[in-house]
Amino acid sequence: MILRYDRVATALPPPTDPDPEGAAAVQELIGGRFGEMSTWLNYTFQSFNFRDRQGARPFYDLVANIAAEEFGHVELVAAAINTMLTGATPTNGKTPSRAPLKSLKGVGNPHHFLAGGQGALPQNSQGRPWTGDYVFSSGDLVEDLTHNFFLETGARNGKLKVYEMVDHPVARALTGYLLVRGGVHQVAYARAVENLTGANLMKLFPAPRIPTEKIPECRPHIERGDHLRLYRFSPNDYLELSAVFNGPHPETGEELVVVDEAPAGELPRDLPAQPAVFAPDVDPGWVAEIAAGLRKKAGLPKGPSGEVANGKANAGRRASAAKKPAGRRKPRATASK
Amino acid sequence: MILRYDRVATALPPPTDPDPEGAAAVQELIGGRFGEMSTWLNYTFQSFNFRDRQGARPFYDLVANIAAEEFGHVELVAAAINTMLTGATPTNGKTPSRAPLKSLKGVGNPHHFLAGGQGALPQNSQGRPWTGDYVFSSGDLVEDLTHNFFLETGARNGKLKVYEMVDHPVARALTGYLLVRGGVHQVAYARAVENLTGANLMKLFPAPRIPTEKIPECRPHIERGDHLRLYRFSPNDYLELSAVFNGPHPETGEELVVVDEAPAGELPRDLPAQPAVFAPDVDPGWVAEIAAGLRKKAGLPKGPSGEVANGKANAGRRASAAKKPAGRRKPRATASK
Amino acid sequence: MILRYDRVATALPPPTDPDPEGAAAVQELIGGRFGEMSTWLNYTFQSFNFRDRQGARPFYDLVANIAAEEFGHVELVAAAINTMLTGATPTNGKTPSRAPLKSLKGVGNPHHFLAGGQGALPQNSQGRPWTGDYVFSSGDLVEDLTHNFFLETGARNGKLKVYEMVDHPVARALTGYLLVRGGVHQVAYARAVENLTGANLMKLFPAPRIPTEKIPECRPHIERGDHLRLYRFSPNDYLELSAVFNGPHPETGEELVVVDEAPAGELPRDLPAQPAVFAPDVDPGWVAEIAAGLRKKAGLPKGPSGEVANGKANAGRRASAAKKPAGRRKPRATASK
Amino acid sequence: MILRYDRVATALPPPTDPDPEGAAAVQELIGGRFGEMSTWLNYTFQSFNFRDRQGARPFYDLVANIAAEEFGHVELVAAAINTMLTGATPTNGKTPSRAPLKSLKGVGNPHHFLAGGQGALPQNSQGRPWTGDYVFSSGDLVEDLTHNFFLETGARNGKLKVYEMVDHPVARALTGYLLVRGGVHQVAYARAVENLTGANLMKLFPAPRIPTEKIPECRPHIERGDHLRLYRFSPNDYLELSAVFNGPHPETGEELVVVDEAPAGELPRDLPAQPAVFAPDVDPGWVAEIAAGLRKKAGLPKGPSGEVANGKANAGRRASAAKKPAGRRKPRATASK
Amino acid sequence: MILRYDRVATALPPPTDPDPEGAAAVQELIGGRFGEMSTWLNYTFQSFNFRDRQGARPFYDLVANIAAEEFGHVELVAAAINTMLTGATPTNGKTPSRAPLKSLKGVGNPHHFLAGGQGALPQNSQGRPWTGDYVFSSGDLVEDLTHNFFLETGARNGKLKVYEMVDHPVARALTGYLLVRGGVHQVAYARAVENLTGANLMKLFPAPRIPTEKIPECRPHIERGDHLRLYRFSPNDYLELSAVFNGPHPETGEELVVVDEAPAGELPRDLPAQPAVFAPDVDPGWVAEIAAGLRKKAGLPKGPSGEVANGKANAGRRASAAKKPAGRRKPRATASK
Amino acid sequence: MILRYDRVATALPPPTDPDPEGAAAVQELIGGRFGEMSTWLNYTFQSFNFRDRQGARPFYDLVANIAAEEFGHVELVAAAINTMLTGATPTNGKTPSRAPLKSLKGVGNPHHFLAGGQGALPQNSQGRPWTGDYVFSSGDLVEDLTHNFFLETGARNGKLKVYEMVDHPVARALTGYLLVRGGVHQVAYARAVENLTGANLMKLFPAPRIPTEKIPECRPHIERGDHLRLYRFSPNDYLELSAVFNGPHPETGEELVVVDEAPAGELPRDLPAQPAVFAPDVDPGWVAEIAAGLRKKAGLPKGPSGEVANGKANAGRRASAAKKPAGRRKPRATASK
Repeated sequence: MILRYDRVATALPPPTDPDPEGAAAVQELIGGRFGEMSTWLNYTFQSFNFRDRQGARPFYDLVANIAAEEFGHVELVAAAINTMLTGATPTNGKTPSRAPLKSLKGVGNPHHFLAGGQGALPQNSQGRPWTGDYVFSSGDLVEDLTHNFFLETGARNGKLKVYEMVDHPVARALTGYLLVRGGVHQVAYARAVENLTGANLMKLFPAPRIPTEKIPECRPHIERGDHLRLYRFSPNDYLELSAVFNGPHPETGEELVVVDEAPAGELPRDLPAQPAVFAPDVDPGWVAEIAAGLRKKAGLPKGPSGEVANGKANAGRRASAAKKPAGRRKPRATASK
Repeated sequence: MILRYDRVATALPPPTDPDPEGAAAVQELIGGRFGEMSTWLNYTFQSFNFRDRQGARPFYDLVANIAAEEFGHVELVAAAINTMLTGATPTNGKTPSRAPLKSLKGVGNPHHFLAGGQGALPQNSQGRPWTGDYVFSSGDLVEDLTHNFFLETGARNGKLKVYEMVDHPVARALTGYLLVRGGVHQVAYARAVENLTGANLMKLFPAPRIPTEKIPECRPHIERGDHLRLYRFSPNDYLELSAVFNGPHPETGEELVVVDEAPAGELPRDLPAQPAVFAPDVDPGWVAEIAAGLRKKAGLPKGPSGEVANGKANAGRRASAAKKPAGRRKPRATASK
Repeated sequence: MILRYDRVATALPPPTDPDPEGAAAVQELIGGRFGEMSTWLNYTFQSFNFRDRQGARPFYDLVANIAAEEFGHVELVAAAINTMLTGATPTNGKTPSRAPLKSLKGVGNPHHFLAGGQGALPQNSQGRPWTGDYVFSSGDLVEDLTHNFFLETGARNGKLKVYEMVDHPVARALTGYLLVRGGVHQVAYARAVENLTGANLMKLFPAPRIPTEKIPECRPHIERGDHLRLYRFSPNDYLELSAVFNGPHPETGEELVVVDEAPAGELPRDLPAQPAVFAPDVDPGWVAEIAAGLRKKAGLPKGPSGEVANGKANAGRRASAAKKPAGRRKPRATASK
Repeated sequence: MILRYDRVATALPPPTDPDPEGAAAVQELIGGRFGEMSTWLNYTFQSFNFRDRQGARPFYDLVANIAAEEFGHVELVAAAINTMLTGATPTNGKTPSRAPLKSLKGVGNPHHFLAGGQGALPQNSQGRPWTGDYVFSSGDLVEDLTHNFFLETGARNGKLKVYEMVDHPVARALTGYLLVRGGVHQVAYARAVENLTGANLMKLFPAPRIPTEKIPECRPHIERGDHLRLYRFSPNDYLELSAVFNGPHPETGEELVVVDEAPAGELPRDLPAQPAVFAPDVDPGWVAEIAAGLRKKAGLPKGPSGEVANGKANAGRRASAAKKPAGRRKPRATASK
Repeated sequence: MILRYDRVATALPPPTDPDPEGAAAVQELIGGRFGEMSTWLNYTFQSFNFRDRQGARPFYDLVANIAAEEFGHVELVAAAINTMLTGATPTNGKTPSRAPLKSLKGVGNPHHFLAGGQGALPQNSQGRPWTGDYVFSSGDLVEDLTHNFFLETGARNGKLKVYEMVDHPVARALTGYLLVRGGVHQVAYARAVENLTGANLMKLFPAPRIPTEKIPECRPHIERGDHLRLYRFSPNDYLELSAVFNGPHPETGEELVVVDEAPAGELPRDLPAQPAVFAPDVDPGWVAEIAAGLRKKAGLPKGPSGEVANGKANAGRRASAAKKPAGRRKPRATASK
Repeated sequence: MILRYDRVATALPPPTDPDPEGAAAVQELIGGRFGEMSTWLNYTFQSFNFRDRQGARPFYDLVANIAAEEFGHVELVAAAINTMLTGATPTNGKTPSRAPLKSLKGVGNPHHFLAGGQGALPQNSQGRPWTGDYVFSSGDLVEDLTHNFFLETGARNGKLKVYEMVDHPVARALTGYLLVRGGVHQVAYARAVENLTGANLMKLFPAPRIPTEKIPECRPHIERGDHLRLYRFSPNDYLELSAVFNGPHPETGEELVVVDEAPAGELPRDLPAQPAVFAPDVDPGWVAEIAAGLRKKAGLPKGPSGEVANGKANAGRRASAAKKPAGRRKPRATASK
């Protein structure tokens, strides 16, 4: 089971120039064979299907816990796509007969506009849907871990190429972050195979052979040490990560670290309505008015209680929410020995 | 972002007689067009793509929060399938040349055995994969909510039919639970449409027109009131559920209730290795021994720290874990008015 | 545009012993690559896309008109499947908890029961959906006609094999009819290629090389001459069929004939409700009662006005309906010279 | 069974500037999940599979009859795409080696040129094929009708967005017409659910919330009352439409009307050959000459007998064809009470 | 480019008891994600796309050469399936109306009988087609080799499980052979990664962790040393295999060996006609008679010139064919140092 | 089984201006329904599944042998695509952060850059994968041959259209060659049907009706007689081709000829590394250095032993390789009578 906390993994720049073609390319990182839905759902299904968990506990904990982080990666790619699509259609003064989507004809993924509301799709850069056939869950632990290492390698390749193709600031903030965090998972699975079999997969890093530290957008995350840390995304479970995730980082030689709590995350940005595609309505004010009425009727605070990066939370919001970020327990970083 | 806690939504019976054909049918509830991956990922993507969240906050909170519960439903279906497949192959004394999978030739979903390790697949009852094309996320709030109501109706239909086809006790425990909880989501979306537009979708219940209370396996969940409750699956967010989820239950007339915390859940069962399909290995002891060594090396407690339903947790497990279940805050049930 | 008349192409036996495995096999004739959806939609799209229709009028008329007949073939296969599935679930006295679908676990196409209401699906015998990729519409007339001849040949192969596999009386009545009528279309396209290019495709008959007249269930249709006739399925259009469809039948040497009207067809059978799958409801009487009330309110006759093979039409039904069957104009059989 | 009459549902402008990218977008309205193939084939299969038709006659008649109209909608979208693609390749004086398709490299749907003959495809705006998985036919009447209402809502969304993206006059004439007629079907299914269950779905109109009357290209159809009329597309059947389709229109309050015959339709335009893609041949005159010879040999009139919007029918065409349009019986408009 | 020689990689037993369900399972080894089409076409595309071949020559030669052997593996699986399906339908005295396929209704893959002629399909064990999405060809050498090692590991898993499920003698002969030869490819790619990066993947063997030598049907191949040999499948190319394929075998410690020619192979078995499915015809004698006539007319020897395992070749067959097996040059086994 | 020889079927021009959109269009010739993978794998599977080969030997030999040639066609299309993509990304001086793929955003098939290494994909011009559903192998000889003729006709159509769309010199050299050789296969299957049934399919040529000799890029191949020749792609097998492939060419009237050996082929071009997509590495020199070391260690010649069109082979390469091209036996052209 999961608890959800309304934060994103890293801060993305606000919407500026829309980039529909860039957004179409970034879709590869959600719905491609090596996109984040694949990493997320591979590990999720492997954890669901894990047999003899007690016997193999450190490995079960590793797979189940990384699965949890991957949710946040899909969420982040979606946020990036949504941001890059914001503003692609006029937001006021345009009636349907003036063809507000005309400039998007033949541009990018047509489903961003014709099917969705300028939002992320579970599709790849070719507009083809993610499929369950991308999930590998053989049950054989060595094989599943080998697969996961290969999957993360393919994922790193894909991120690097999207980085090279799309230099929109939002895409760069996204890929810079994902390269660092995905790199940790790549190391984690290599280390798991090593710890299980003795095969020194660390010799394969970096794969592809581009040093992560050479990517400018990766550097801030490296500087704060995020390339070394495996966070524990659970209030109380998955306590044996450090049995597997340990030893020196293959690129820098620094010690890998298990952080005994989830990152606090960043407030998500509330992206503006795009009325030309009816998201959330032709007249967003109509929804807002009804929402306010329902809130009042239910005895809730007058303004919206949720916090977003680009707005004030309702004064009436519970104090504890601000003080005690999601999933945070007493911080305790465990450096492996 | 999410936190994961290692509990399942309801207790399932232990493995007894395997039922590979039943397990193949139950796959419809994971990977079918109306299965739990569909409800889960529809709401998840809708929440990712939600624009003007502050204006439409109660609706955003509703969709995002139900998405979180749906994760637990996929997990539960997977647990049921894994349980039903346990024991389908001999667990000892059988060498490969004796054809330990022979009795499964032509039985059920061949990928349960030839591709997976007697585990759940992201496929439907025909062995076809779940696809991103099952996700509907138009951005138009009225339309997305209308879709969600229809989706839950289709999901209820599917659950009822699996219930009728598979009477294995694990499948019955599963469908009994899902019918009650899915029913709450069906009500929630109907109520959301009503609160937004005034259309009284409550007149459509039950849909299909089989009273839930007539299903014996549903009754325990109804008796403890679970047909009325929407849980908040978040430490601090999604606080406006009661603005939408309120009023009388369409079948019983009782008041709908928002529960201000997630359910504690049940300890998962640690299903035994199935060495004939190498899950987690031909020789599970090999993995366990290595795991124990790694735990020791990392300074972790000697035994496995994770708790499972069918085993003792390590004595050294942190006390707090047992005392403070996942995501539980001070309970506060808010009956809507 | 089309007019629909509520008749089926030939009479099928009433439901007797259900045959879910047979019904699953018969699905190949709806949704297979060479099934009736393929013939229907290939010719339909080809007619939609036909350029220079006036110049190529006889060929346009041929393709457009055969497309119309193919609708009735899909309808007939669906009727056969529905009939063969009737009775596969108990129709009374069974509560859901008694598992009314249990005997169907692992039998036939699971979507007949878990997704549909014991009804036909747009899928093939493997449970895979028909796809638009089965449509070939190159625009090149010689090539499209060559394709159509090949498609009909593949379709004949498929019908023969379903005939050989499923000897349920409904399947046999179906395939017996389709072999004769599909054979006419096979001849029509071969003749079209001949008339356009001079290539004597008649030498390829029968293909596969099983004489149609040796199939007992084909004989009644042959005896009444249906293997020679191309009906005109239109009130006033497609008048140039005889320019292409003419000459001797390749198997019998008899003259091919264009019939200047559509066949009257047979009354469809009203198949009974299957409440275990909620078709049309758990309690069919509930629907019927509401329907009767709506009819009354609208000033319509008391009983149902539609005619079915197994019931009495409402006495108040318009007399003309019985007297003047669909699409029938003054009969005029035009034997080609 | 069906009769086909060679008319299109509304008149489209003649080919002018080709718009391959627009045509690629319009494909969503044929082969998309919410395109016309989906509405058409959903209702068609639901009618094939309808059980206890006599008991539920008004609903059966409604579904079966709307299915018939939908054929004409697919036909109309195809005609629009064909028109928009006309002229995209040079029609004379260009040899293959001069690369007559060069300007289309990277433009629109490549299959319009590389696979088809500048014609419509059973694909969506991404070039992915329509699939049988888009058909929902549960057999449960309430659920199928709920689905159909949702499907029409999604279809209206798609039409509005194509309208906004493609302002080619042919696309606008198409979407203007479809929005009005699709709107009638949306109302019809909402009303069916209302009449069956009492749920007032009329409160959901318009959905999406853009008033149809604000669309300039819709107005002519509204002005002649086509937003209120359900036509009966059958010579003699489907007589109980008025039992369901009745009451006030949700947007205008006017009474809904059942028209007891099919519309006459408009003559289709005969689109010119596109020899660069061999449609119908590299040398269309070759086909025409052969066709004329075949007509003569068969004793048919000298010129083509079919009527098209942009040409003269053969003088020898049967007089009755002009006088008695397809499927027209004595007109009788039945206003519901 | 390729030359084909009409031999199979190993001798299979003759047809005995047909095993349609076994044949359906064996399909996983042709068309599954980890089947032989996948290994074959992955390496084939990787070799087509290989850049800077001269710089990376030993690796190019390795991939291109293994691709060539894989053709023979697909061919062998097809031969096994064809053999296992032989005899599943009656071969004489059965007319179509006697339902010669009846016993196969609901058994195995329906396309073996309804679509094909009791022959192999490019489908997996679920009847789903092989797809180009199974091909991974990133161009990055380290990554492609890593992938190939993982692919071979998954392939070994699949072979082991088919071995365990299907004990038909033909399936066992097949899997026994493939396990040994696939194991060589698994070693080859592991060794390639090692030689390129230093990562000692040899520690991962056997994967899955079942010793090959414990499989009785593998032993004969091991005893003649086939687990150590990489054959060169080319008259004159791919000469640098030994630069990569060298060192000790990870399971036995013996030296790996490059054999400088292709194996001679075994004569294929000529499987008998299956007239019930028209393969090659309802009346195979009809084809044979025509073939004999064509041979005579062309001045070819009277009898068939091709050699098969179960028949005599034409006396007039060129002597050289028997003496000089395909692709054999002067044998030269190169043991790596 | 096959032997592979490292030659391509015809010489292609060297890389000049890259043409990513052209390359995306050319993909139709690999992975489209009528592309070379389809011809290749259709004939390959048909040959695998061929029953009563001895009885039908000339037809078996024909199908099996043409399958072998088709491999070279897929290889050639891949070489063309690789060449056309060469240079699309900068090859030096560009760091990832400078966005070396930026100019390719929204251009052509995104998988050429994001998934692959500027290489060919098993996909069509829409970026959709080739699928096993494109294989037709009914086992019925007449039907399979009829299919093959139709398939080749569709393939010729596709080649002509790619020719018309893409005038890049590499694409023109490709299509000019394929039209001639594919034309031979089209004739071969037409002739096979004729020889088997008497149906004079030769009347259908050319299909589409564009004379091959009018294509400038086809003429050199016609002038050297390649439009008349069927090569035997085997050292010793498939000796009965002349029994079927004989008679006059349908377009020119010249005698068809069987050539009793495979063509020598042309040396392939070694396309340069594309480091921006890591093919074969970010730093190709790294691979080359390791390769040289491995060669040395294995006692192989110092330089690469393989020959390529654009480079010198190692002096130490075996002399025989240059003298005795692949698969060449004593040439013996057999003109049919």
